[in-house]
Amino acid sequence: MLSKAQIKLIRSLHNKKFREETGMFIAEGKRLVEDIAASSIKIEHIYATPRYNGMLSHIDITEDELSEISALTAPQTIIALCRIPIVTGGLPDLKNTMALALDDVRDPGNLGTIIRIADWFGINNIFCSNESVEAYNPKTVQATMGSIARVNLYYVDLKEILTRYKNEGLPVYGAMLNGKNVYNETLSHNGLLVIGNEANGISEGVARCVSNPISIPSYAGSDGPESLNAAVATAVLCAEFKRR
Amino acid sequence: MLSKAQIKLIRSLHNKKFREETGMFIAEGKRLVEDIAASSIKIEHIYATPRYNGMLSHIDITEDELSEISALTAPQTIIALCRIPIVTGGLPDLKNTMALALDDVRDPGNLGTIIRIADWFGINNIFCSNESVEAYNPKTVQATMGSIARVNLYYVDLKEILTRYKNEGLPVYGAMLNGKNVYNETLSHNGLLVIGNEANGISEGVARCVSNPISIPSYAGSDGPESLNAAVATAVLCAEFKRR
Repeated sequence: MLSKAQIKLIRSLHNKKFREETGMFIAEGKRLVEDIAASSIKIEHIYATPRYNGMLSHIDITEDELSEISALTAPQTIIALCRIPIVTGGLPDLKNTMALALDDVRDPGNLGTIIRIADWFGINNIFCSNESVEAYNPKTVQATMGSIARVNLYYVDLKEILTRYKNEGLPVYGAMLNGKNVYNETLSHNGLLVIGNEANGISEGVARCVSNPISIPSYAGSDGPESLNAAVATAVLCAEFKRR
Repeated sequence: MLSKAQIKLIRSLHNKKFREETGMFIAEGKRLVEDIAASSIKIEHIYATPRYNGMLSHIDITEDELSEISALTAPQTIIALCRIPIVTGGLPDLKNTMALALDDVRDPGNLGTIIRIADWFGINNIFCSNESVEAYNPKTVQATMGSIARVNLYYVDLKEILTRYKNEGLPVYGAMLNGKNVYNETLSHNGLLVIGNEANGISEGVARCVSNPISIPSYAGSDGPESLNAAVATAVLCAEFKRR
């Protein structure tokens, strides 16, 4: 049974403003909540209906209560109130590993899919420009399919961060339509890969920080598509980096 | 100025039932409508507001009228009433080219993204199982970003079609979690690549038609994600086939 105050709090977390004020977010569904419970993300409360058939201890709620607090069109059986993780310890060392940098990715679903892709390809760190969509909105959290529990996210001034890593001698790859064919380039096992905004690609200022512009060749004729979706391009490039 | 009957017709095309009854669909936005106008898809009428700054001849409508008939949350400037193309001439010859086969892809956005990916990688034919989401719903059409005008779609009994091509001696690849590492396999320049349903992968019956099960290796630890998104997997595999 939920109090009115609890319902109000959870529903308020559908909105960015309240997530920022409280430092909390919600996650829904068995797999996702269990992945978060197994991660370093702190869970405040777990609420589940009688249909939940997993092992996590929880507060019982009714289906109607779940519908009232869920952000999903088709609510599942379990919802968790979680703390947004605060990344401490400074910037990660990228001398022996690859990170992603997202320049103003705006679509919540795209960001979630990119987090899931990074996780699949063993990439543990993602830098998001401050203008990027916030990662703890319900759509992104759900689209990560649990990967949000395993990937570190940093909201940063992207130009500053890229410059800093470049000064360390690390390569900064950028997915750009006029970049060099990725299949003809030498690829490093470390450094950063920058992915641009869905409509406008990588912004001018960030592009100046890119040391290695690369592209995925199109096999369509001249009247083919203008570009690939941002998450799709991320996947094809990550696969190519990791394959080598 | 739109008549009530026109408004009713266009709005009815937001629903599958009426698209099937009338054989028509709607497409919105400058780039998409222009791509369709340049293709073999037949356009019945084009409606545009004074903000439309393109060259296509059209019937003038107001912003309010556009809002009333648009299927988009943020209507653009132009909407076209199009004929669903009827593919004639039998099955395509795949002796020298690759086609996709979708086994029950259900998400409209995923299907649209897959059509855009196929177009990018020069794949002109997609077979969809009869249970797959219908391609002319507004979400899919928009997600193709114009590629729906350049890729042939066939709704078929997938098992029958795959068997037929296999009997011609063509390879039938299938994206399967327990498939062989795609990077260690010999890949053909022809045949079919089967992509499964978002939640359940390739169904049992269709899996029996697959001659070459392949997978994208994960670089995450044992607690990593279960799978990649269907469209993302399609892109990584198409890129690998085409790269060789």
